[in-house]
Amino acid sequence: MPDAPHVPAHLAPFVHADPARAFELSAIDPGDKPCSSGRKGDDRAAVESLAVELDALQNRFWADRRRKLLVVLQGTDTSGKDGTLRHVFGRMSPLGVRTAGWKAPNEVERAHDFLWRIHAAVPSSGEIVVFNRSHYEDVLVPVVNGDLDGDGLRQRLAQINDFERLLAETGTVVLKFMLHISRDEQRERLQARLDDPQKAWKFDPADLAARERWDDYQRAYQAALAATGTPWAPWIVVPADSKVHRNLMVATVLKSTLESLDLRFPPLPDDLRGVRVA
Amino acid sequence: MPDAPHVPAHLAPFVHADPARAFELSAIDPGDKPCSSGRKGDDRAAVESLAVELDALQNRFWADRRRKLLVVLQGTDTSGKDGTLRHVFGRMSPLGVRTAGWKAPNEVERAHDFLWRIHAAVPSSGEIVVFNRSHYEDVLVPVVNGDLDGDGLRQRLAQINDFERLLAETGTVVLKFMLHISRDEQRERLQARLDDPQKAWKFDPADLAARERWDDYQRAYQAALAATGTPWAPWIVVPADSKVHRNLMVATVLKSTLESLDLRFPPLPDDLRGVRVA
Repeated sequence: MPDAPHVPAHLAPFVHADPARAFELSAIDPGDKPCSSGRKGDDRAAVESLAVELDALQNRFWADRRRKLLVVLQGTDTSGKDGTLRHVFGRMSPLGVRTAGWKAPNEVERAHDFLWRIHAAVPSSGEIVVFNRSHYEDVLVPVVNGDLDGDGLRQRLAQINDFERLLAETGTVVLKFMLHISRDEQRERLQARLDDPQKAWKFDPADLAARERWDDYQRAYQAALAATGTPWAPWIVVPADSKVHRNLMVATVLKSTLESLDLRFPPLPDDLRGVRVA
Repeated sequence: MPDAPHVPAHLAPFVHADPARAFELSAIDPGDKPCSSGRKGDDRAAVESLAVELDALQNRFWADRRRKLLVVLQGTDTSGKDGTLRHVFGRMSPLGVRTAGWKAPNEVERAHDFLWRIHAAVPSSGEIVVFNRSHYEDVLVPVVNGDLDGDGLRQRLAQINDFERLLAETGTVVLKFMLHISRDEQRERLQARLDDPQKAWKFDPADLAARERWDDYQRAYQAALAATGTPWAPWIVVPADSKVHRNLMVATVLKSTLESLDLRFPPLPDDLRGVRVA
């Protein structure tokens, strides 16, 4: 069995790791705060100190070079993917950490299978790569648009599971977070983008069109997550109406996973012991 | 004239921006501290607060999307490229910041011109890319090994200048730092790698062989920098025997350059003014 994410026991209700078991996205409350101390200021300080710990763990992960880590951030528009990148991964050195953002495929990418461009971007030894959106868009957007269903969808979901198993079996820990927000919270965040001059650049009119199909997207997420939560690449649903809680939970799972890997600084080879530099 | 790095006036003696003018690397003292307050604790705090300012500037640079920034970190082994990445760039969000490390070219890369793999890794709009080593290795290693000189070397240096001008003329600010350390300082740092279990993984026996050719490398650096300090891509020589000073100077030039660019958050398009999200 390859290395897999390690999630603290009290977060088990938010993990889906077996496609044969029932999974209900709608049963998880986006306003829940399973990692919270109950005090926002303390939670915010905890995120800051976790980010510093994660920096040290990433340094060790990079030095160790025995594994790769792929973090997938999925969620609807405004669910907090960029904010998670900033607050959870923002203290790490850029040496060994990389993000890949996924927009609609271009002409060359469309001329290949949907996992072609994804595979090209997976982490190498020692690297942490964060996907800002991912191959899951390919089982969401076409489903909502009515271009993919039935056997075609089932095939693609199975291809994703096979692909992620390949990654896990070849040394990659695959950590998939679904940033789960409510429809009301999305309205407030979209409005904030319209009203705040420092956020306006993030507003995309297409987000309004997607919002009109909120229920369709939730159904597509439900089907995709249910089919692709596996032992080697489980889904972790993060209640994300609170930004601080979202950061806290992602950082907590990330730390727990990195600590479970027994990372080490490679020792000096025997023939270099006692060498003096002239 | 394209955007170019903006260096505070008091650092002019460390800038080489005209290949027709004299340049003497050996005239710059690696122990100099032109950015220092004279108190190490204060300098360290200044680096921390600059890193936070740089994080905000990078966020604006990413939102603005009108420019690209390529930062080149060159220097001998142990000159502090990784440390600069950690301390100067380590507070930025990984969203929009990328590093590219350059080792000896592989078989496919050697079957192309030396700038082929480099060109593939340059920043896209809004991106900051830091090169940990760079195409300059291709006018250092083969020169020291005796495989490149005379017309061959001159041609390659001219090709670098043309390539960097292309980048500058198409919206990329090219910021090249030479991390300049003394031979004594390198000895101490290599020894520290041998003696500290958390640093041993960074020790490469090849570094000892390169150290034996210290003078050859300094001469190769001298020739390369003299020929490639241009108005559109000047060299900034950073006295780097002090790690804190090195970080301080790189952060200072980076901040000065980013502030000179008149970065802005793109405003909301007129037709979206006053929209209410349903």
